[in-house]
Amino acid sequence: MTTKKQLLDYAVDDAVDLYVLLKSADVRTAKNGKPYIAMVFEDRSGEISGKYWDASPSDIENFVAGQVVHLQGRREKYQTHPQIKILHLQVAPAETGLTAGDFIERAPMTREAMEDYVNQTIFEIEQPTWQRLVRKLLTQYRDQFFTYPAAKSNHHAFQGGLAFHTISILKLAHHVVTQYPDLNSSLLYAGAILHDLGKTIELSGPKATTYTLAGNLVGHIVLLDGELVRACDPLKLDPQAEDVLLLRHMVLSHHGLLEYGSPVRPALREAEVLHQLDELDASIMMLDTVVDHTAPGEFSERVFALDGRRFYRPNQPQSQPKPEN
Amino acid sequence: MTTKKQLLDYAVDDAVDLYVLLKSADVRTAKNGKPYIAMVFEDRSGEISGKYWDASPSDIENFVAGQVVHLQGRREKYQTHPQIKILHLQVAPAETGLTAGDFIERAPMTREAMEDYVNQTIFEIEQPTWQRLVRKLLTQYRDQFFTYPAAKSNHHAFQGGLAFHTISILKLAHHVVTQYPDLNSSLLYAGAILHDLGKTIELSGPKATTYTLAGNLVGHIVLLDGELVRACDPLKLDPQAEDVLLLRHMVLSHHGLLEYGSPVRPALREAEVLHQLDELDASIMMLDTVVDHTAPGEFSERVFALDGRRFYRPNQPQSQPKPEN
Amino acid sequence: MTTKKQLLDYAVDDAVDLYVLLKSADVRTAKNGKPYIAMVFEDRSGEISGKYWDASPSDIENFVAGQVVHLQGRREKYQTHPQIKILHLQVAPAETGLTAGDFIERAPMTREAMEDYVNQTIFEIEQPTWQRLVRKLLTQYRDQFFTYPAAKSNHHAFQGGLAFHTISILKLAHHVVTQYPDLNSSLLYAGAILHDLGKTIELSGPKATTYTLAGNLVGHIVLLDGELVRACDPLKLDPQAEDVLLLRHMVLSHHGLLEYGSPVRPALREAEVLHQLDELDASIMMLDTVVDHTAPGEFSERVFALDGRRFYRPNQPQSQPKPEN
Amino acid sequence: MTTKKQLLDYAVDDAVDLYVLLKSADVRTAKNGKPYIAMVFEDRSGEISGKYWDASPSDIENFVAGQVVHLQGRREKYQTHPQIKILHLQVAPAETGLTAGDFIERAPMTREAMEDYVNQTIFEIEQPTWQRLVRKLLTQYRDQFFTYPAAKSNHHAFQGGLAFHTISILKLAHHVVTQYPDLNSSLLYAGAILHDLGKTIELSGPKATTYTLAGNLVGHIVLLDGELVRACDPLKLDPQAEDVLLLRHMVLSHHGLLEYGSPVRPALREAEVLHQLDELDASIMMLDTVVDHTAPGEFSERVFALDGRRFYRPNQPQSQPKPEN
Amino acid sequence: MTTKKQLLDYAVDDAVDLYVLLKSADVRTAKNGKPYIAMVFEDRSGEISGKYWDASPSDIENFVAGQVVHLQGRREKYQTHPQIKILHLQVAPAETGLTAGDFIERAPMTREAMEDYVNQTIFEIEQPTWQRLVRKLLTQYRDQFFTYPAAKSNHHAFQGGLAFHTISILKLAHHVVTQYPDLNSSLLYAGAILHDLGKTIELSGPKATTYTLAGNLVGHIVLLDGELVRACDPLKLDPQAEDVLLLRHMVLSHHGLLEYGSPVRPALREAEVLHQLDELDASIMMLDTVVDHTAPGEFSERVFALDGRRFYRPNQPQSQPKPEN
Amino acid sequence: MTTKKQLLDYAVDDAVDLYVLLKSADVRTAKNGKPYIAMVFEDRSGEISGKYWDASPSDIENFVAGQVVHLQGRREKYQTHPQIKILHLQVAPAETGLTAGDFIERAPMTREAMEDYVNQTIFEIEQPTWQRLVRKLLTQYRDQFFTYPAAKSNHHAFQGGLAFHTISILKLAHHVVTQYPDLNSSLLYAGAILHDLGKTIELSGPKATTYTLAGNLVGHIVLLDGELVRACDPLKLDPQAEDVLLLRHMVLSHHGLLEYGSPVRPALREAEVLHQLDELDASIMMLDTVVDHTAPGEFSERVFALDGRRFYRPNQPQSQPKPEN
Repeated sequence: MTTKKQLLDYAVDDAVDLYVLLKSADVRTAKNGKPYIAMVFEDRSGEISGKYWDASPSDIENFVAGQVVHLQGRREKYQTHPQIKILHLQVAPAETGLTAGDFIERAPMTREAMEDYVNQTIFEIEQPTWQRLVRKLLTQYRDQFFTYPAAKSNHHAFQGGLAFHTISILKLAHHVVTQYPDLNSSLLYAGAILHDLGKTIELSGPKATTYTLAGNLVGHIVLLDGELVRACDPLKLDPQAEDVLLLRHMVLSHHGLLEYGSPVRPALREAEVLHQLDELDASIMMLDTVVDHTAPGEFSERVFALDGRRFYRPNQPQSQPKPEN
Repeated sequence: MTTKKQLLDYAVDDAVDLYVLLKSADVRTAKNGKPYIAMVFEDRSGEISGKYWDASPSDIENFVAGQVVHLQGRREKYQTHPQIKILHLQVAPAETGLTAGDFIERAPMTREAMEDYVNQTIFEIEQPTWQRLVRKLLTQYRDQFFTYPAAKSNHHAFQGGLAFHTISILKLAHHVVTQYPDLNSSLLYAGAILHDLGKTIELSGPKATTYTLAGNLVGHIVLLDGELVRACDPLKLDPQAEDVLLLRHMVLSHHGLLEYGSPVRPALREAEVLHQLDELDASIMMLDTVVDHTAPGEFSERVFALDGRRFYRPNQPQSQPKPEN
Repeated sequence: MTTKKQLLDYAVDDAVDLYVLLKSADVRTAKNGKPYIAMVFEDRSGEISGKYWDASPSDIENFVAGQVVHLQGRREKYQTHPQIKILHLQVAPAETGLTAGDFIERAPMTREAMEDYVNQTIFEIEQPTWQRLVRKLLTQYRDQFFTYPAAKSNHHAFQGGLAFHTISILKLAHHVVTQYPDLNSSLLYAGAILHDLGKTIELSGPKATTYTLAGNLVGHIVLLDGELVRACDPLKLDPQAEDVLLLRHMVLSHHGLLEYGSPVRPALREAEVLHQLDELDASIMMLDTVVDHTAPGEFSERVFALDGRRFYRPNQPQSQPKPEN
Repeated sequence: MTTKKQLLDYAVDDAVDLYVLLKSADVRTAKNGKPYIAMVFEDRSGEISGKYWDASPSDIENFVAGQVVHLQGRREKYQTHPQIKILHLQVAPAETGLTAGDFIERAPMTREAMEDYVNQTIFEIEQPTWQRLVRKLLTQYRDQFFTYPAAKSNHHAFQGGLAFHTISILKLAHHVVTQYPDLNSSLLYAGAILHDLGKTIELSGPKATTYTLAGNLVGHIVLLDGELVRACDPLKLDPQAEDVLLLRHMVLSHHGLLEYGSPVRPALREAEVLHQLDELDASIMMLDTVVDHTAPGEFSERVFALDGRRFYRPNQPQSQPKPEN
Repeated sequence: MTTKKQLLDYAVDDAVDLYVLLKSADVRTAKNGKPYIAMVFEDRSGEISGKYWDASPSDIENFVAGQVVHLQGRREKYQTHPQIKILHLQVAPAETGLTAGDFIERAPMTREAMEDYVNQTIFEIEQPTWQRLVRKLLTQYRDQFFTYPAAKSNHHAFQGGLAFHTISILKLAHHVVTQYPDLNSSLLYAGAILHDLGKTIELSGPKATTYTLAGNLVGHIVLLDGELVRACDPLKLDPQAEDVLLLRHMVLSHHGLLEYGSPVRPALREAEVLHQLDELDASIMMLDTVVDHTAPGEFSERVFALDGRRFYRPNQPQSQPKPEN
Repeated sequence: MTTKKQLLDYAVDDAVDLYVLLKSADVRTAKNGKPYIAMVFEDRSGEISGKYWDASPSDIENFVAGQVVHLQGRREKYQTHPQIKILHLQVAPAETGLTAGDFIERAPMTREAMEDYVNQTIFEIEQPTWQRLVRKLLTQYRDQFFTYPAAKSNHHAFQGGLAFHTISILKLAHHVVTQYPDLNSSLLYAGAILHDLGKTIELSGPKATTYTLAGNLVGHIVLLDGELVRACDPLKLDPQAEDVLLLRHMVLSHHGLLEYGSPVRPALREAEVLHQLDELDASIMMLDTVVDHTAPGEFSERVFALDGRRFYRPNQPQSQPKPEN
């Protein structure tokens, strides 16, 4: 009955039949006065919404966020937004053994591998102040760092996304310091590890992620700066010493422009590089997702975080037999 | 010989003859190969530059920054910038008893009066967390707060200017909370006192003020946020508790726009009001100076900090006998 | 049956039962081909919309704008906009004695008190030309000035709002001229009284306010300038004399920026101050309303007129027992 | 001795020898302490500056603005700005019969021809209100209209330039109403004649033109609107009647954008057309001058009023024998 | 039964009864699960949409794009957008003899007249390189040039609109070169003819016009530049010779600003003029349509391509008996 | 006598004594009427200007651009710009054997190594159309490609800079396609090789580089697109086939924003990546130079091409003994 196809693999008008996670389920009242449930379904391919009309009291009780369900319906388009027309829905029987965790998108590295990579990089930070500060803050926020998403939406918005995004930047950084040896690798690595760590305070958690009050009133960039300053006292460091200031600046300036929330623009070579690597990784991650969900020969939907641009997926295959020269 | 006129009271082509402070004195080489000294003179009316040509070695030794001098010359205009043509210059004789302090612009309140006003306002902060944080930080930076300027240039760029600007805002705030009683006066006063306190770290000191490295790489807004977070540990406060976050937000958002260096825009009624009162006081202070130095019936030079606008000083007297109706 | 609760006091899903004013009632055709009435209800707490389905001819005849009605229903949310689901609706019986005036939001001062305040301030305008021009124009537009709203929407959009907003600015101005005595109080008061008087020509009236053709093609700023020029002839004044130009400039520049509709930017100290006080009062009025309608611990809806920002209402009570020092 | 070449016909390093008008002459002090005169020379080809070093008292007395002089020197370039190196200068002998008027750039039509053209167009304004308002204001400002420049600098900055620029627009307008007959020709002609008439109040006069106080504090657009309103009373017109509002709107919106000083953007088809014809004529006039003063195969200096662009003058001749096909 | 009224002549609530073209017909699923057809109807007055509910299989088969139909219904407004409520719909009987061509909006000149005008202008291009390039490209794209619209939407979005828009610019150009004889008429005419010719590659065709892949990835401006370069080889021209570069620049710069897709800004007098004439004709064409569809005394809907402005249609008649003077 | 120090190694006030290349030498007239030569000196560390006063006719003859000279003088600062005060200058004796080539900054790879790298990468382009187009254009412009600078100023403004910049991007690209395997490496490499090849037409040559007319009127981005289209005919390719369009788009969009001269924004994943790698390499190259020329503990001059930012060179050494953990 179920297939190996995933939620976002269906084209418009395809019949849909598979187990998925009910990510959210809000009860509302329809124009005809009857209750319906606005649902969002999710599996590792992504998410899509649908409306469950004429909900009975027991439906409302059963179909709650976090439940695994067997979904049968049709993929449709409602005013340019994809959605599922639900034809039949039931709670997944216990014997399937399926749990929410089977459907949630995750970072494509294990937590263990991510921890190893980050630990290894910390060893490569030769400057002692920066190493101590990175160690202290990472110890303090370790669990959140390896489980939180990198954002509420847009890029790396999945469990472990924060660490995975950080590691992608570190990989780029390792190449860049080889190609441009004048860069201070210790500063670049330390800045990269800390740059988004404030998101562990800005965001509410790995699932159903929202902004905390601290996130709304202060923002992750300044929150982490606060934690850096606070970490100085027990480590007997002066928060206004040059080496501490350099690291603070790496974190503070990484959005590049004041308009994007950095209170200062990059004034160090390494700060400019960190900013650009951050953008590069975020763009590629977004575009990989966007292009994957676009049919060959067509343009994607508008990508809000890339100025509303639409991206083309060529018919052209990606690799081919080498030409004879 | 000397007159009671001050440095900026002279019109173009007037003969100048008075004691002034030599604010800066840089030795350079002229086109003809001989050394000259680029000088800036200062008294409480403001400052103006001049060139001392054909400087002898003893001139170079005598005419150094900080020296009080007897200046005779002529006020001129060099490519729209005012300057003094120096005709005769000598070090002020000891018997005049004049010191640098006699010529430096100061806040128009005594330090004692300023301390009283601020202390009184702290009593009016009813919320205990905010009161304790304000007390702690003010104790820590008291001396700098009452002697530093509010800026390197533009508004309140004089000794004690930082405290005087803060007090002006507090006075406006006292009126505003009376007129609009829904505002939280404790939050507004606490935010006002701390809003520019970070300048005591951003700027190098009360005289010959420059930006510190911390000022350049972090900026006064985030520097003070760091100090607020750091003050929480000894006071056993949680830097992410709501009341602490509200105060941090007051400081962080007071420039109003991200483009002006605030990492977050005002999201509290009181934060919006603080931002607007800050602008109002700064604008009036700048304009009072600008209009004072403009002749009636003329437009001022362009005011850089007000988008390069020029301001008109009317011929119209400021007050008159009341009309009979 | 009815309660003392007002229209905007209900939370989502609350049952609503109260007398309100039918502010507007437009008949439309539903998807099923039957007529329905799109209604807006109003009382002094604000306004909210609802749809009256399956309207009979007699419903259409009875439920017209301006009618007081007894509304029973439920508060709902339709795509982020609040609305009322109407369950029962009937015209208020005559014996309730309720009239439209009982439900319309008004300025929180009586007209008499507002007239007194403005008259008193006119006495304080010492410069005779400005006093005569203010008197003449205020006499001409007195009734409109004390009954019109200050805007179609946003701030002070209620009966008497125009005069009330003007008086709020005058109160701020009285404080400001005390704190900064170099300001010309006559010019500031005269400019403040006239600054928005052109809205009596720009807007259609105190109720169901729309823009007039003159408002759309000329705008209130230039309309008032025209009236100032026109008033000069009978008063034997030269519209290009300095004192008249100063007052014209106060009105013309009060939006601060060309992009906001001022044909010139402020070039007088008093014009800059008027612009800033106008913004300050408008912001506080808007924020008071916005924060009032937000639950503690939550962020408001986006405030369009403040760049779409959302504002936080703290859990923190506004005042508390004074800390022991 | 003198030649028929004009001031701007000389290339860099050419010897210059001709009669010119001394447009301005400011006495200043050189670095060596001696007075010199900063001069601007003018003839009908344009203007250029030069410095008269070591000026004697009698030089200062003789060489005053408005004097016709015999100039001998060399054309040079000083930091990208052209200038004349003065080798010999003397007041033109009375017997040459030369007067200032012989050297001032003028509109390329006689005043009489310009008056005829404008009068003829007024006859074509069929709508009576517009015709009466145009007649009244033109009668009032006739002399200024036919002698003032269109601007202090940039385009049509010569005597009679205001009327000439207006007539150029009227000529374009006559063609446009033929090609697009839905346009209301009366409104377009009336708006075109009045659009810049406020410059007769904004500018100080036909020579040595500066901005008046009215120009600085109100601006020509709103000044003319004031005059339109003021003209209504004697003509028994209502300044808020539709036909008057349409004409006011034509004038008020003709700069097209709020940022360019129009308090409203064009909201009439004819207002949009007037704005575009105004830009078209101004651009072509500027570019004709700019390209004339550029050598074939080179780029001009940056044209400030066209966003600092530089324009290319082709080697390509402008017309050639027709190709045989 | 049918009337002479056209599709856009009906006011809201009018009964509609006429033959029209079914421009598009998309089958979708309604909330109740039944198929409906989203239709767009068109005749020479414009187009309007409507929904055909409860579509049977034979309805879906019959009502396809391109079909002429007899439409009976009512004009309505759905959330500010006009639409037709369909009451009865049937395929037009063969005996009416109506075809799609009878309903499609066309250029108001015959193709023959347009070809004549363009050919005549080509004769007036005296410079041989430009004439040869224009001839070659026009020969190559002749059919598309005289049948394509000028755009997918906005101005001249009808069959033949591309040539008609080009000819309108040429007419303006003929007048302008007479009034400003320094302009190079050959360059202006050649540039005008080619400026939008790239749209024959950018757009898919004269009907149901969409963007081609070349249009999306390259754009009409650079596509035509590519064709110009490519045409040089057979004509033995150097694409980097001055005369070819001048013509390429005319095409490349005609959008005026980089932000509008021109890779270079106009750097020739004629390029600036072409850009302005292009804007003038496009604006007038758009405004004629907009004002036509607005009732006297009302403002139009927002015109997206003119910065979202709304335009007023005066009550004022367009022409009247001449006033007696 | 001469030292191994290079031109930019001297601090302000240092005595300078070394052989350098006279990069440019313009004869001008000083205020005292005597000729002087405005010179620019260059060696591999960079360039700096100086003025040679009171030039004799033989000086003017000897000191011409391209000459190697022995320079003795002093490094000074003239209004924030560094310059050399020339004390003694003579043409380098023939016996030194020094030629211009010894002083011109070059790419830090040999031409041979650069050719090898590019050839190797071309082999890795698996898609035949792209490989053939790259081969053809590189063959055509090979010499220019390996000798031209990448720009007139800013980054890679040295001989061979164009190829070196391209290779730096290719190295980054090789790493990126490994880390993000979904990217089409053939397209990225082909686009990278061609992206700036148009500069061989836009710029005048490897030395004394200026913009050509084609560069000014068309620009390197569109010039290369023209060459791509032109190359299609002999290769029997359709310039509007998908694979050709993809490559054209890579080149056309690589400036990222319309405002920066790209006629289209990136609409392919690989185009976005190319744009970002281009910026990354250019920024690092500029910053390496800027930071090199700044003293430790100081901020650089403003970097125009990076929005006028100033960059800090830390006192902090770049690497240190690893901390013991």
